[in-house]
Amino acid sequence: MDSVPEVPAGTVPEAPAGGAFASPAAARAAFRAGLVRPTSGLCPGYTQVNLLAVPQEYAFDFLLFAQRNPKPMPIIGVLEAGQTSSELLAGGDIRTDVPSYRVYRDGELADTCSEATELWREDMVAFLIGCSFTFESALLAAGIEIAHISQGVNVPMYRTSIPTVPAGIFSGPLVVSMRPLPASQVAEAVRITSRYPAVHGAPVHIGNPDEIGISDLASPDYGDAVEIPEGHIPVFWACGVTPQAALLAARPSLAIAHAPGQMLITDAADSRFQVP
Amino acid sequence: MDSVPEVPAGTVPEAPAGGAFASPAAARAAFRAGLVRPTSGLCPGYTQVNLLAVPQEYAFDFLLFAQRNPKPMPIIGVLEAGQTSSELLAGGDIRTDVPSYRVYRDGELADTCSEATELWREDMVAFLIGCSFTFESALLAAGIEIAHISQGVNVPMYRTSIPTVPAGIFSGPLVVSMRPLPASQVAEAVRITSRYPAVHGAPVHIGNPDEIGISDLASPDYGDAVEIPEGHIPVFWACGVTPQAALLAARPSLAIAHAPGQMLITDAADSRFQVP
Repeated sequence: MDSVPEVPAGTVPEAPAGGAFASPAAARAAFRAGLVRPTSGLCPGYTQVNLLAVPQEYAFDFLLFAQRNPKPMPIIGVLEAGQTSSELLAGGDIRTDVPSYRVYRDGELADTCSEATELWREDMVAFLIGCSFTFESALLAAGIEIAHISQGVNVPMYRTSIPTVPAGIFSGPLVVSMRPLPASQVAEAVRITSRYPAVHGAPVHIGNPDEIGISDLASPDYGDAVEIPEGHIPVFWACGVTPQAALLAARPSLAIAHAPGQMLITDAADSRFQVP
Repeated sequence: MDSVPEVPAGTVPEAPAGGAFASPAAARAAFRAGLVRPTSGLCPGYTQVNLLAVPQEYAFDFLLFAQRNPKPMPIIGVLEAGQTSSELLAGGDIRTDVPSYRVYRDGELADTCSEATELWREDMVAFLIGCSFTFESALLAAGIEIAHISQGVNVPMYRTSIPTVPAGIFSGPLVVSMRPLPASQVAEAVRITSRYPAVHGAPVHIGNPDEIGISDLASPDYGDAVEIPEGHIPVFWACGVTPQAALLAARPSLAIAHAPGQMLITDAADSRFQVP
């Protein structure tokens, strides 16, 4: 698990430096030109996604892993081998439009780079996976405070005792993110996030962390611990680190991912992923 | 398109001969032992699915085609290469437990057989795809009459001018099934079928068939025409013939499917696929 990087602290709750971008396309153009920065808070209302790209030989198993585990691995789009753009990033290029990339060889971090064009093999298949930024925006809009944002750290994430459904070479534990909420807001948070099944959806667990194999909330496996105010209940959502951990544990010859907190900003409106 | 078989007339609305089976497992055992018959009406409350199996080399493209076209191709389960059973057919065998199979070579019907064990290559991947039997049960339970069942024929199906989203070698038009309903029941039918996204979900079109490229309701491309009573509105649902037609049009070296109307009966309760 050491090979799954922790998200660096303090990268999330930051306002756009020098003002907002006019559009997702403008943000992608800036990243393409070399800008490297966290994407949290950029282009509000537009969907940001995780990138995980693998050679074709792993693609069926990985897509099947997603099909069997839609809560931690909601597929927003797939770029087939040879495809470097799509309607989700019109005029863009998946190899350059993420602020920075992490390159893994045999499951180990091998490199970090601001563009991946030279590394991008002809047979790379890119998976774009929903991210909790979408539902966090909806929670904030409903007046629900999110502890890690208020506290200026990254969301705490934990490996659980809940297994994913294996597919081919991929398996491993469900990883969850945790947001403590006052009891009075838990039901509303469930209601709101249930409306976003394409970005992890409803919580997978509410309350006692022991029941899902988490022994100490103060020691997350990824991200940062948050203070849990008196009377707040820990609420757990399926997390996109789950497929990344499963992918790296399978030690593929090559995998390319977004750097933590530096997501691909798509042209899709968050509202597109809302269900009634 | 000629290579996609029409469902034989008169096979749908039939009661179990000699009484009902005690369970899906009992029905599968009977089919394994050689019984060949339509499955409509058998094991009420349990989900029946389409079977489409292809060699591994086509599996990624086909799964991606499903991911991009969930309404016509809702995936209920996938049996990986080498896997011949799953929790959907506990104790069963996908190669023997369908009443009869159709075998396609290079996209053309090559054979029909009551078991496929000898043809089943080690690298076959089997896709189990949701079927409208599930939502038809829910419509009937709500007192909505279904014309093709009342008239003792198969559901009429039509190629449309609506394209699917291509994936790899797979593409083609959306195929729809049509059920005429009195205007007073259209909203209720939409509400009910919307609750079953895993088995085609809400209608894709209501009313004027011209708008989706259907010139003559009396001449379906597959299945049988039904009489449309005065004042009834044609309601169109995405149909599982869509992936079968796309698959065969791509002319895979081998494909194995259920024979029309003779589905795999799974252990999954229909209610499992109902959403709020």
